[in-house]
Amino acid sequence: MALIVQKFGGSSVANAERVMNVASIVTDTYRQGNDVIVVVSAQGDTTDDLIEKAFELNSKPSKREMDMLLTAGEQMSVALLAMAIEKIGCPVVSLLGWQAGFNTTSTYGTARIKSIKADRMKAELDKRNIVVVAGFQGINKYDDLTTLGRGGSDTSAVAIAAALHADRCQIYTDVEGVYTADPRKVEGARKLPEITYDEMLELATLGAQVLNTRSVEMAKKYNVEIEVLSSLNKASGTIVKDGSKMEKMLVRGVAKDTDVARISVTGMPNTPGVAFRLFGKLAQRKINVDIILQSVGRDGTKDITFTVSKANAEDAVEAIRSSFDLDEDAISCDTNIAKVSIVGAGMESHPGTASKMFEALFEEDINIDMISTSEIKISVLIDANDADRAVSAVHKAFLPEE
Amino acid sequence: MALIVQKFGGSSVANAERVMNVASIVTDTYRQGNDVIVVVSAQGDTTDDLIEKAFELNSKPSKREMDMLLTAGEQMSVALLAMAIEKIGCPVVSLLGWQAGFNTTSTYGTARIKSIKADRMKAELDKRNIVVVAGFQGINKYDDLTTLGRGGSDTSAVAIAAALHADRCQIYTDVEGVYTADPRKVEGARKLPEITYDEMLELATLGAQVLNTRSVEMAKKYNVEIEVLSSLNKASGTIVKDGSKMEKMLVRGVAKDTDVARISVTGMPNTPGVAFRLFGKLAQRKINVDIILQSVGRDGTKDITFTVSKANAEDAVEAIRSSFDLDEDAISCDTNIAKVSIVGAGMESHPGTASKMFEALFEEDINIDMISTSEIKISVLIDANDADRAVSAVHKAFLPEE
Repeated sequence: MALIVQKFGGSSVANAERVMNVASIVTDTYRQGNDVIVVVSAQGDTTDDLIEKAFELNSKPSKREMDMLLTAGEQMSVALLAMAIEKIGCPVVSLLGWQAGFNTTSTYGTARIKSIKADRMKAELDKRNIVVVAGFQGINKYDDLTTLGRGGSDTSAVAIAAALHADRCQIYTDVEGVYTADPRKVEGARKLPEITYDEMLELATLGAQVLNTRSVEMAKKYNVEIEVLSSLNKASGTIVKDGSKMEKMLVRGVAKDTDVARISVTGMPNTPGVAFRLFGKLAQRKINVDIILQSVGRDGTKDITFTVSKANAEDAVEAIRSSFDLDEDAISCDTNIAKVSIVGAGMESHPGTASKMFEALFEEDINIDMISTSEIKISVLIDANDADRAVSAVHKAFLPEE
Repeated sequence: MALIVQKFGGSSVANAERVMNVASIVTDTYRQGNDVIVVVSAQGDTTDDLIEKAFELNSKPSKREMDMLLTAGEQMSVALLAMAIEKIGCPVVSLLGWQAGFNTTSTYGTARIKSIKADRMKAELDKRNIVVVAGFQGINKYDDLTTLGRGGSDTSAVAIAAALHADRCQIYTDVEGVYTADPRKVEGARKLPEITYDEMLELATLGAQVLNTRSVEMAKKYNVEIEVLSSLNKASGTIVKDGSKMEKMLVRGVAKDTDVARISVTGMPNTPGVAFRLFGKLAQRKINVDIILQSVGRDGTKDITFTVSKANAEDAVEAIRSSFDLDEDAISCDTNIAKVSIVGAGMESHPGTASKMFEALFEEDINIDMISTSEIKISVLIDANDADRAVSAVHKAFLPEE
């Protein structure tokens, strides 16, 4: 008898029919003799609807109250899924994040899991109950509800798999697995049977929106094998696992991310500590900075260019304006850009990968604004209008149709 | 500085505009220097919508999962009201039933409050926060969410007022107070400035749907003065309080209840213990019986007639059928009936009240099926079609326009 953790996202439980479909996947697994813990997100557009309701009343609600509001979303979906499972005739119990023992930090909106007190889940499994757990949520030391941030249900699932040493952690989505590129847009894109944690991390960060980054980090840390698969059919998915057991591919996939804003600050004094102060201010506001480029201008001043997510752009500009005495036009912000990246664990031992990527872009006449590289990733920042063409060209260069 | 508990029902927070209205009532009270605890129900039709969603999946969901589902309703409304109060600029914190310390029995769907651990509420008041509490809900000894049953938010408010020795408990509704009869239907019906707990209890039980019965019982037990008033205007409401401080009125009001089913059982053996066995079976199923009439038939068998709420009728018939060996036509159930009642603490010392009521009905040619009396109440069971005429006639007889 194995312990299997299954996670279903909002679109997988968007309506009664889909909830019944999930219930049937879950009960099939249970009836094969397995212990099953199911993690669910809020139904379909519930979270967005709730956010809209909040903004009708208050354009800047506190994050604590926002978490109080949003956690109701998963509460409804766990209850509904439990009812659907009852209907099929299997014993089931639904648990909220705090009931399942999710203790988190106190940062409302983006809390991190500190520990899982799994007694209740274990007790329910011992009673042979299917356990349906509300993803995305937990409780902090003040006994207040917190959320793990968007995509947090993946993290909830992996955390449970780690805490209870589950035999498998299945993340059901509306795609069949992880692809070499977006199959709706790139001809020749194909499903990967497996991928390493590191590659998946780069792809997740880079906008291949299959798995939440934190969940992959956690899976890597606790060595939880994740299977990404579709709730809509029975095709085999993609296994995300430790790289040491896998063949290294030069390039595993090509990703596009359009949630990028580029902020340029010119005319900063060329003295030590300027960059530290600038990025310190952003860190205080919990703004993640991605690519950074720093250069010294001709007049001896510093120019600093960096990228953040679009949602943080305004806040970042404001932070800099209020901390530095700068001319009105010294800060510019461009959101019509995209980041295109190739990811592959084989890259680190294979020189010339970058130049091959740049060549593919050059041949398509696509201008590169910024470049960023890691051991297993190369990213370029380009005009958003060129992004799809860029992905296709790069995909063709590295992953030609077999 | 006074501590004021205010309760707002679902229709008072049905949309953004009304939530803002409630926020302004609450913050006005707070800014006058008072400590304020606000109890809210789920918004408008939320509860009904959730029940419908549940039934789409499972026509007989477990009560535990139903409570898990429904408690999300108040969770959303406390968060939204807190955001509206933040918008106005007052410090506020929302608390779920379990966070506010509501420990209940384990009967899902109709749990009773066992105790309130008020530490958190007190701590928040000490920080000068307005405390918004989710009504209708609590937690049982298994750490599972429970609901107090429909109208339970009134009980939540009174329980808080009792636990924290509040100076006032205001129940805001969409009517201005308690009336001598339904003002939409009875000419000359007027608002009562005050009413005793016992009178209110009889009226609440009898279908004057202003206050939940349990809440009045609890208010009486802990001597909490309740003020019933409208959230839509500033008119003074009705005070519900201890009768010893009040003038006794012969008849305080006339109520109509159409949620009545009359079940007749004929041909029961005329042996001791038959009634005990019958009503014991109903009690086991937690079916409340209201009026009971027992007579011995000509052939020496017993006939028993009683009333229950419509929702319990089918269950009651089933209970009797499975416990007694009766002819197919020995049990009949009639739901086209209504109960009309007069209530007044002065009645007990004033003979002739019943005959005056019967006379008023006789003059309207209304047939009386069953009669039930208590010290402060007289109820008659009549044809549902006659109910409104009966209320008007009785109201005119006892409470003529001033």
